[in-house]
Amino acid sequence: MRVGIVGAGQLARMLLEDASALGLEVVLLAESDEDAAALSAPHVLLGAATDPKALAALAAAVDVVTFDHELVNLDALSALEREGHVIRPSPRALLYAVDKAQMRGLCRVEGLPGARSIVIGSREEVSLDEVVDQLGLPLIIKTARGGYDGRGVFVAEDRAAAGEIISSIQQSGTDVVIEEHAPIIRELACVVARRPDGEMATWEVVETAQLDGVCREVLVPGAFAEVLAHEASLLARRVAELIGLVGIMAVELFETPEGLFINELALRPHNSGHWTQDGSITSQFENHLRAILDLPLGRTERTAPAVAMVNVFGGPPGSPGPEALLADALEVPGAHVHLYAKHARPGRKLGHVTVTGDNVEEARRLAWQAASALGTPVPQEIGASIS
Amino acid sequence: MRVGIVGAGQLARMLLEDASALGLEVVLLAESDEDAAALSAPHVLLGAATDPKALAALAAAVDVVTFDHELVNLDALSALEREGHVIRPSPRALLYAVDKAQMRGLCRVEGLPGARSIVIGSREEVSLDEVVDQLGLPLIIKTARGGYDGRGVFVAEDRAAAGEIISSIQQSGTDVVIEEHAPIIRELACVVARRPDGEMATWEVVETAQLDGVCREVLVPGAFAEVLAHEASLLARRVAELIGLVGIMAVELFETPEGLFINELALRPHNSGHWTQDGSITSQFENHLRAILDLPLGRTERTAPAVAMVNVFGGPPGSPGPEALLADALEVPGAHVHLYAKHARPGRKLGHVTVTGDNVEEARRLAWQAASALGTPVPQEIGASIS
Repeated sequence: MRVGIVGAGQLARMLLEDASALGLEVVLLAESDEDAAALSAPHVLLGAATDPKALAALAAAVDVVTFDHELVNLDALSALEREGHVIRPSPRALLYAVDKAQMRGLCRVEGLPGARSIVIGSREEVSLDEVVDQLGLPLIIKTARGGYDGRGVFVAEDRAAAGEIISSIQQSGTDVVIEEHAPIIRELACVVARRPDGEMATWEVVETAQLDGVCREVLVPGAFAEVLAHEASLLARRVAELIGLVGIMAVELFETPEGLFINELALRPHNSGHWTQDGSITSQFENHLRAILDLPLGRTERTAPAVAMVNVFGGPPGSPGPEALLADALEVPGAHVHLYAKHARPGRKLGHVTVTGDNVEEARRLAWQAASALGTPVPQEIGASIS
Repeated sequence: MRVGIVGAGQLARMLLEDASALGLEVVLLAESDEDAAALSAPHVLLGAATDPKALAALAAAVDVVTFDHELVNLDALSALEREGHVIRPSPRALLYAVDKAQMRGLCRVEGLPGARSIVIGSREEVSLDEVVDQLGLPLIIKTARGGYDGRGVFVAEDRAAAGEIISSIQQSGTDVVIEEHAPIIRELACVVARRPDGEMATWEVVETAQLDGVCREVLVPGAFAEVLAHEASLLARRVAELIGLVGIMAVELFETPEGLFINELALRPHNSGHWTQDGSITSQFENHLRAILDLPLGRTERTAPAVAMVNVFGGPPGSPGPEALLADALEVPGAHVHLYAKHARPGRKLGHVTVTGDNVEEARRLAWQAASALGTPVPQEIGASIS
């Protein structure tokens, strides 16, 4: 069976690894032949993820189309689906990952827990007084579409800043999502896989740590109460059913004094699920492939008492890339190093490290040791807690 | 770093999967662009594994050359090594896997345990009476070079049969290894990885079951005494040092009433080590790459109480290939299916299944269930023991 992937970043690269094990053929739609996955794939079409012609060429070459990222063209994908091509997840489901305003609307309609929010249309007048009356200050302001990895998310401390951010988003022709600044105790994520017939599998709910909107580490098990994990898992399953998910979805959540809030959805393998490659019976990548091919899902239990995943980022300008530092990282006992074959740039995500162990503190310490050996600057707040 | 692989079968395909995770680039020398690994690789040179020109082109394109199989050209590889190319394992070490007569010579000189044997040159007269006086009947007769997966190994019940087999091997220009027919209690294998500086890692010694010379299943832990496992592991390390191994080597052993006998060496990832992909902290494929790139070796402990690996073979003519039967196999809880994207032919090895579990009997039963669902004919003697 032939799988087409829109986009050729590290998620596509890791999908290729598991597709190879299952004996599958994969065709990529890549922006450049230097993309992480294009470097390791035999079948690459070059084109933009939003180009209807490129998408049609991909769909014509494969049995099912899936995704490396959400910066896609829903109209073009819907047209392909109407022509009979299999798009998984479907554009109808993808909408809730592509458009944060739609996701907030779903939460409101279905009574799913989230921060209080207001959506402003791209050409709509906004009354900042009303917004602040309802949501308080500071405000979280997000572009409804096109943001990722912390981009497109802003904090406004006062009305003036809020006004500027909102109009600059509106000028790009995009709706604006304004949210209350809820106090966050910690961040959680749950990854769920769902087949066309509704069969679902969830992995253990994990604790994630973001810095400037970018995931830095994932810990399994997390430090939260069991009951929260259960609730997060139920929420992920409920959303998966509501949107008719086929494939993998990560639900990012906040633990707040009011309970769990849904933050964002990603309808693809997700950074919060990378630990499953080395710490679970079946990885999120394999179960994504199984789900979109309508094959039985694999078991999702953890294979070790604890797992830590730490992302690898480029260091200051001029520092060596992680591939040049591999020997030092592999000295760390049990470190599973995953590199994306990307050119190093300051702050660019270049890979991740997973360590399994008997307790999460030790696994975390070793994972950071390996990530640091690979050139990842260790944030002060994290350095203090692992030394 | 760029790795070149001579040959593009399933071992190369699985090396590609782990090379991708480490961010490495791989170039293959493939006989055909339909070879298992050629189907999943972006960089493929077409040519014979024995062709000096093709080998030179591969060596020129990469930092280190390694191997998918042993049907290689040692003279051409030695010439490339003299020109400064890095060949790992080196032709000097490969010799003992390529040539069974050399391996037997090594065992004799170093006092390594093995079946009593006699080597007959390709143009040498043989006295069958002397051979039978020394080794008894029946005899095991092997072609010194070019055999694999049971091919090139014969059993002769009497002098007449032995004479015919020996002269037919000699006519192909190859030396002949004649061995006593030692009573085999069971078959074991130990996989060892070794870096250029001598650092070594061994995985747990496993029990293997062959039928007609072809591996059918691998069980971890095996049913043998602990002391035998320790001895097998020491033997593997001793051989690795003696031959200056760099990379992975599998040592196949027989348990006999006289103790352990070394049977054969394979200087590459080996079927007896496929279980490490899903049942060990580091797979044999990753540690092969680490070893040949002179990177620290990964931990080799088992990740579950028991692991079973069962090979997938093509069924009778006209039966569907395993890719068409994937859904049934993936219904088996915990089954890790690895398919090689090869065209199904009766008796052809098309993939393998690994299952981890709490005990080896249950893991074995599930692995056979999945392999059978993929079309593998279940041998009568095995069917009886798992039902």
